[in-house]
Amino acid sequence: MSLIDKLQWRYATKKMDSTKSVPLAKVEKILEAIRLTASSSGLQPYEVFVITNKTIREQIKAIAWDQTQIMDSSHLLIFAAWDTYTADRINQAFDMTEKIRNFKSEAGDIYRQKLLNSYPTRDAETNYTHAAKQAYIGLGTALIAAAYEEVDCTPMEGFDPSALDKILGLKAKGLRSVVMLPLGYRKADEDWLVNLKKVRKTKESLITWIE
Amino acid sequence: MSLIDKLQWRYATKKMDSTKSVPLAKVEKILEAIRLTASSSGLQPYEVFVITNKTIREQIKAIAWDQTQIMDSSHLLIFAAWDTYTADRINQAFDMTEKIRNFKSEAGDIYRQKLLNSYPTRDAETNYTHAAKQAYIGLGTALIAAAYEEVDCTPMEGFDPSALDKILGLKAKGLRSVVMLPLGYRKADEDWLVNLKKVRKTKESLITWIE
Repeated sequence: MSLIDKLQWRYATKKMDSTKSVPLAKVEKILEAIRLTASSSGLQPYEVFVITNKTIREQIKAIAWDQTQIMDSSHLLIFAAWDTYTADRINQAFDMTEKIRNFKSEAGDIYRQKLLNSYPTRDAETNYTHAAKQAYIGLGTALIAAAYEEVDCTPMEGFDPSALDKILGLKAKGLRSVVMLPLGYRKADEDWLVNLKKVRKTKESLITWIE
Repeated sequence: MSLIDKLQWRYATKKMDSTKSVPLAKVEKILEAIRLTASSSGLQPYEVFVITNKTIREQIKAIAWDQTQIMDSSHLLIFAAWDTYTADRINQAFDMTEKIRNFKSEAGDIYRQKLLNSYPTRDAETNYTHAAKQAYIGLGTALIAAAYEEVDCTPMEGFDPSALDKILGLKAKGLRSVVMLPLGYRKADEDWLVNLKKVRKTKESLITWIE
């Protein structure tokens, strides 16, 4: 299958097969795609939690409209973004860059200073929103990487974020939950969505060429 | 190359080769990947502009820190999100779903009503932020689709959004610019970034397993 065929194949799986587990090698590839994807200024202002623990997943299901994929997937990914940008976090990212590249430049210093002068002084909500958007790049990348590996997944925004933050102890880590992505395999004979036609805007209504 | 190898190959191209143009078939595949990707409730609350027009691109470059990729790429994608969720927009999406699937369900009606009761009454900024996040799923998908096609690209947040909205007449369409993605080919001998090591958080610092 081409990548486009795989994107046609994927869908927001409503019923997953709890007897099937995504092989670790595939999960690792999806996580590696997230790790390698882009983020604003390369800060990667989010973390990813991979929940296989059943007790924790029961707790999450209870604050997420009882969606069955939370239990029936084999790996539940949770994207959690920085609650704000701090000087420490920015410096850590730039220090890591200099260390890995063994290279310190004036341009790098100017850029670091530009971020230090702007991000930490903005209000936390603005910063969190910006960080959360970067997590959505990770989500978009994970979706397509999962399709590429022929793994099913369903992005989920339907949960109580502050309850999830409590379950995972995110506040103490300076994180806030953004979006969930269960990975698993469809249970086709019990999924009402699997055989319904994919609905997307037409090319013409989504895309405008300015030539 | 595997998908992961392609993600290793990609980078935020700083200098593009203005003499090379991305073949239309590849641009179409990247746009199709965006069209097929996921969005919250399937609303696809954004549009994509593909700018090849040089005059418009000159205007955009002037409000985007003079970044050269805006002129040197062959296709400049601009993601623009709905400025808010309205009853009309929500109804249009649900009507399209019923038409394409030739299928009307009580569950669908309940879900439509749930969105109609909540989204349009929220403030426009909250709605725009939510719509913009969906555009970032599109961006994350486009990035990886471009890498898959071995096309270079650079996500860009560095521009004056209200100036860009004016250039493209977005306000009248109920849209606000979110992020840009020039597509093109690297000019390796003039790109300071191309040979520098890719910097990413370690697996351990990005990902936490809860088993």
